Amino acid sequence: MTGKIAYGMTERLNLPHKRALEVVAEALQHEGFGVLTTIDVRKTMWEKLGEEFPEYVILGACNPALAYMALRDDMNLGLMLPCNVVVRTDPEDECTVVSILDPMVMADLSRTEGLENVWRLVRDKLEHVLAEVKGVTQ
Amino acid sequence: MTGKIAYGMTERLNLPHKRALEVVAEALQHEGFGVLTTIDVRKTMWEKLGEEFPEYVILGACNPALAYMALRDDMNLGLMLPCNVVVRTDPEDECTVVSILDPMVMADLSRTEGLENVWRLVRDKLEHVLAEVKGVTQ
Repeated sequence: MTGKIAYGMTERLNLPHKRALEVVAEALQHEGFGVLTTIDVRKTMWEKLGEEFPEYVILGACNPALAYMALRDDMNLGLMLPCNVVVRTDPEDECTVVSILDPMVMADLSRTEGLENVWRLVRDKLEHVLAEVKGVTQ
Repeated sequence: MTGKIAYGMTERLNLPHKRALEVVAEALQHEGFGVLTTIDVRKTMWEKLGEEFPEYVILGACNPALAYMALRDDMNLGLMLPCNVVVRTDPEDECTVVSILDPMVMADLSRTEGLENVWRLVRDKLEHVLAEVKGVTQ
């Protein structure tokens, strides 16, 4: 099921968490996004707080050419880059949930003229990523 | 000079870039934030695109206890975590600029009731970080 959340787009998958991570990284690569950072939130919460947490990984995705264009016009944009992709397990039904930050959030905050096409392109590409990820599960 | 940008708070320092990175990491640690990720944008742009870029590092800062509270109430918040801190060189005057994402951006997007105190605490702590960093240069 494709869904909307206030600041992102999301998809529920019938894939194990680890496989979902591979599928997401591949789909991102097909659209020109590398994964620059990986944060294992579950591991961090356990190590730092001794708290149990569901599987929850934050991937920092970046398309260098598009980031270059955006940063050239708004040097502060690094405050919102890379674009986060969350791959997590919903503890209620054990489903894997993939969510991607809506790049229009960055567009709204930056309000930099001339970047409208860049943001639209980023959003199109990330929608393709989510569609590809969804296709793998069927 | 302390300043505001649309989605962050910023400070210009008379410190070399590398020293500023150390000072920022120490100040974050004093407020309970670890640096989970480090992205060298200049290096990435050169390696991926062959483009010159000023010194520009994005640190992903996280206070695990506060992140735990926020994520427990809004599981999508990982789309905006960790909190980015940018340490860059302004090519116009060679000054080092430190900027921190205003956590109220996350608060506005999440609109999760009961988290107001968490966001205020995060903002207070990050303001202390910026004040400490500024103190080192004087």
